[in-house]
Amino acid sequence: MPAPSDNWGRWGEGDQVGTLNLLGPSEVLAGLAAARDGRVLSLALPIKGATSGGAAAAVPHVRGRPLPQHYMAIDGADYAAGTRPVGAGLRVADDAVVVSPHGTTTHMDALCHMWAGERLYNGHPADRVRSYGAGRLGIEHAAARGVVARGVLFDVAAHRGVDHLGPLDRIGAAELAAIADSQGSSLRPGDAAVVRTGWPRVWDPRDPGRYQGAQPGLAADAGRWLAARDPSLVAADNAAVQGLDGDGRSTEDLDDDVHLTLLWRHGVHLAEMLWLEDLSSAVAARGRPDFLFIALPLPVQGGTGSPVNPVAVL
Amino acid sequence: MPAPSDNWGRWGEGDQVGTLNLLGPSEVLAGLAAARDGRVLSLALPIKGATSGGAAAAVPHVRGRPLPQHYMAIDGADYAAGTRPVGAGLRVADDAVVVSPHGTTTHMDALCHMWAGERLYNGHPADRVRSYGAGRLGIEHAAARGVVARGVLFDVAAHRGVDHLGPLDRIGAAELAAIADSQGSSLRPGDAAVVRTGWPRVWDPRDPGRYQGAQPGLAADAGRWLAARDPSLVAADNAAVQGLDGDGRSTEDLDDDVHLTLLWRHGVHLAEMLWLEDLSSAVAARGRPDFLFIALPLPVQGGTGSPVNPVAVL
Amino acid sequence: MPAPSDNWGRWGEGDQVGTLNLLGPSEVLAGLAAARDGRVLSLALPIKGATSGGAAAAVPHVRGRPLPQHYMAIDGADYAAGTRPVGAGLRVADDAVVVSPHGTTTHMDALCHMWAGERLYNGHPADRVRSYGAGRLGIEHAAARGVVARGVLFDVAAHRGVDHLGPLDRIGAAELAAIADSQGSSLRPGDAAVVRTGWPRVWDPRDPGRYQGAQPGLAADAGRWLAARDPSLVAADNAAVQGLDGDGRSTEDLDDDVHLTLLWRHGVHLAEMLWLEDLSSAVAARGRPDFLFIALPLPVQGGTGSPVNPVAVL
Amino acid sequence: MPAPSDNWGRWGEGDQVGTLNLLGPSEVLAGLAAARDGRVLSLALPIKGATSGGAAAAVPHVRGRPLPQHYMAIDGADYAAGTRPVGAGLRVADDAVVVSPHGTTTHMDALCHMWAGERLYNGHPADRVRSYGAGRLGIEHAAARGVVARGVLFDVAAHRGVDHLGPLDRIGAAELAAIADSQGSSLRPGDAAVVRTGWPRVWDPRDPGRYQGAQPGLAADAGRWLAARDPSLVAADNAAVQGLDGDGRSTEDLDDDVHLTLLWRHGVHLAEMLWLEDLSSAVAARGRPDFLFIALPLPVQGGTGSPVNPVAVL
Repeated sequence: MPAPSDNWGRWGEGDQVGTLNLLGPSEVLAGLAAARDGRVLSLALPIKGATSGGAAAAVPHVRGRPLPQHYMAIDGADYAAGTRPVGAGLRVADDAVVVSPHGTTTHMDALCHMWAGERLYNGHPADRVRSYGAGRLGIEHAAARGVVARGVLFDVAAHRGVDHLGPLDRIGAAELAAIADSQGSSLRPGDAAVVRTGWPRVWDPRDPGRYQGAQPGLAADAGRWLAARDPSLVAADNAAVQGLDGDGRSTEDLDDDVHLTLLWRHGVHLAEMLWLEDLSSAVAARGRPDFLFIALPLPVQGGTGSPVNPVAVL
Repeated sequence: MPAPSDNWGRWGEGDQVGTLNLLGPSEVLAGLAAARDGRVLSLALPIKGATSGGAAAAVPHVRGRPLPQHYMAIDGADYAAGTRPVGAGLRVADDAVVVSPHGTTTHMDALCHMWAGERLYNGHPADRVRSYGAGRLGIEHAAARGVVARGVLFDVAAHRGVDHLGPLDRIGAAELAAIADSQGSSLRPGDAAVVRTGWPRVWDPRDPGRYQGAQPGLAADAGRWLAARDPSLVAADNAAVQGLDGDGRSTEDLDDDVHLTLLWRHGVHLAEMLWLEDLSSAVAARGRPDFLFIALPLPVQGGTGSPVNPVAVL
Repeated sequence: MPAPSDNWGRWGEGDQVGTLNLLGPSEVLAGLAAARDGRVLSLALPIKGATSGGAAAAVPHVRGRPLPQHYMAIDGADYAAGTRPVGAGLRVADDAVVVSPHGTTTHMDALCHMWAGERLYNGHPADRVRSYGAGRLGIEHAAARGVVARGVLFDVAAHRGVDHLGPLDRIGAAELAAIADSQGSSLRPGDAAVVRTGWPRVWDPRDPGRYQGAQPGLAADAGRWLAARDPSLVAADNAAVQGLDGDGRSTEDLDDDVHLTLLWRHGVHLAEMLWLEDLSSAVAARGRPDFLFIALPLPVQGGTGSPVNPVAVL
Repeated sequence: MPAPSDNWGRWGEGDQVGTLNLLGPSEVLAGLAAARDGRVLSLALPIKGATSGGAAAAVPHVRGRPLPQHYMAIDGADYAAGTRPVGAGLRVADDAVVVSPHGTTTHMDALCHMWAGERLYNGHPADRVRSYGAGRLGIEHAAARGVVARGVLFDVAAHRGVDHLGPLDRIGAAELAAIADSQGSSLRPGDAAVVRTGWPRVWDPRDPGRYQGAQPGLAADAGRWLAARDPSLVAADNAAVQGLDGDGRSTEDLDDDVHLTLLWRHGVHLAEMLWLEDLSSAVAARGRPDFLFIALPLPVQGGTGSPVNPVAVL
């Protein structure tokens, strides 16, 4: 998909508003065909609420973010203590969640999540992203069809023969190409490219600093290599797809920033903070790098992203 | 699946903790096989935040529930007004959602959501459902594999030749059987049964009372008929699967309550408040009632449910 | 206090940023002197959380607003059900509240809450009020000293000899002057003017429409009359100080809008949705209309207001 | 006030439900009389929202707590970007706050906040503290009259001639007595005892570990000494009134735990995380340790506490 600077307005309605429109029916069917055994693996980190026990902080997260909160409105202990059942004796447990998805849990980015200058992807005015929601490119557009696609795992850690990459390691285009080559399975338009660094393995809730400092990730040319292959989605198990420096920040200049290359210039959705350890083992055991990948963001109107529970069907 | 009163502890680990274990690999593959065209339809209502404009109240919801809230932490209008970009010029929009899924949006119920007496489904002690989450049968178990299954639409409104059922209409077992018969497509173990009443069509944000009063839904014998067919999930477009009386409440006695029959006695997950109007047209046009149904709840640890964006792949 | 259109930048630092600076030490001492008996009355509506029981909706509120939510993170029923105490046996209950103060509970408005055109009170640029908080005139400035002042009750309902005003009743300047006259107690600079309509009495949670429709309140000339007397605060028991039309909206034009007159042109803070029924009886019994009025907004940095629990000390 | 173990049920209705009933009219008047100059000082830490900038984490807080969140529903930047004004041209900014007060900001504890065994203060059954709020001793009772009282500063840091106490320093009864003696101003029933350790001075947002580790505070005998003097409230600038060990926890056994002594056995409300640096200077300059102390908790029905903005009127 060419960058919007060359092409604003060229595509059909789907692209313009932020749906995943390289993901048409034939790509969906190709995705379904990539499943063989029917085994389903969740690729999500657990969402734990920030309660008096500090559970939320036990899950990998970026520093300084508001962690998920989960509260019961009524629960079984209440009934045990004497709360009257409903109607003829029904007992109902009810709850609420507060989630700021970026940096706190497995999530998908809307096309309105990041940009440079005054315009979003495809030329939409950035000031339409307002306090009451993004008037352009909100996650509801991605939710309209979701991602039901062929997934291809780029298991960089396995390819290097390590448990996880080092914090300063960067993944270049040549390495992605070599992995694709070695597994004889190229990335096709509409596919979901799933990149494993193994970084969640370094998470230690008693010492979050290591996870939250520098992180491995895609180099600038890898972003361009992926963009040139027109995936519907690039998903990764690190916090930002690209690498981060010691302060947990992206430090590429704007031309090289992988978020900008994929999300903003080419309209490729991103998903971050996936859990890929089980998928890595399963793919290794099976000898095929592709599978059915599904991610179904919530239709939060004007949302900049959504927590998701992506699954791989092997 | 026999009721747990007869069988506590008989099933394997999956069932006991609340995964959808009649949904094994072969059922998943049967689900994938039900997709033909690769067309994906979202079956979710939009999630709109409760802001100064009252958007949240514009979406169908049950009376007296805390509506979803959606807030931007930073947005495009802020940058336009002078907020400094991040790093070399990145502009990032970020947001938070507050959701109490039951009664406010399309969602899936965990097995801990409803029970009678002192025990949850499968004999788990109900007082393990506490303020910091359900220690048994939380939605994270359903999230571990999600629902990737063959879906079968029971389009009751279409079968009756009406836009939507009336508020006092109840759907009996015989009617479900007749629909299955007429469409030559029976419900198999592990399938998702999707029941359409058309009730969301009566929603009028200026007059929420009609939607929020009595609602059509499954009669007690329909709950039993479905349970006997071992579906992985029963999904409906009304607020409670079963019918509701004029105060928006379930009034069946405990033996006949459809939530208890399906969720509590038989461990059949429920999904509610789906948007089935597009699916109804698509299925009618296509002449086949089955499709690939996918719902991927978020792994909220100890959650009583999750907002979901279910999709049908035709 | 002259309107800012004439005087931008004239006042000292206090006024410019939004503290209540006509409320200097001598006005505070005058406030303390107005207390005689030492009896304290809360002037706040209760804050009830929006849980499965719909408690939040049982308290007077404006239509379409996100109601307060209150959740326990851990509670006594949890311990009774077996949750382990902390340390040597401590049991701790912990909770969270979610509050959008305007229109949902007794609250105080920051000077950044309302304006016309491009500028806030005192010429501050309105676009400094951003998603991450108001960079100018946030409620933290009012919180720096709070309101500790002489309060004067304008008990309009009592003056008219009615339980509460009618929905279309407007309170004019002449009526305020007559009340002041009749009670021999004029409003002095720095005082808090407390206006009682009695409107909360019409609240019926089973029929919120009456409260939420047209409401009595101050007429335009009453706003000007008050502004001319330099109060630190104008507080009222209706939803908007001024009257509202049948849709629950303010319909004055900009010149006459009481919020604009007081909050925006003259920097007079407002407090709304007070509970004044007990105060009305107490003042009547006591025969003096003045008392010590205290409201201490939370220092929410950049907040547009704060829930408050104002008290009168008689 | 004798401990409830000796006296359950002895006191009048006020005490039983959790109001501050040693704070009758004469104590309120004594409080008012303690103000001399009319100068008002806020004793609260700022509440900053947890947004993309990490502002919330910049304010002193206990480790592992859900930090305050503050979101704009609509703001000035939105209007500048083109959002239509309301009605004839009104621009309204609106926001929401999410607060878990304990450990995150200046707050007051309800009597239901802490206990040992099965019973709250005054014998109320602890299992009435449920997910939908405390059915006994919620903060709404303290809110009914608030704290309007004579405050007495125990400026321990100043007494020791240090900027702040060390992390392992404990404040004993003898030291409190010596301070009272030296300033010739004893604590009287109904007073608010305000204890300054200076600990907030060690807060460094780039290195929160020091603040969040061991903290100075009251020793067990100081808790008893205070309880014997029947204050309405004990307020402190540390996180827990009592001292904390290196993990930020209370380690006294139950008999000696200061929360239990004050809050649970004697029904003395607590306030924590105050900002007392300005008060310390003002009191030193003035040469009188007493002042009017005011704290007005929000009437959160069934709340375990409330954020507050306490003020001292000198």
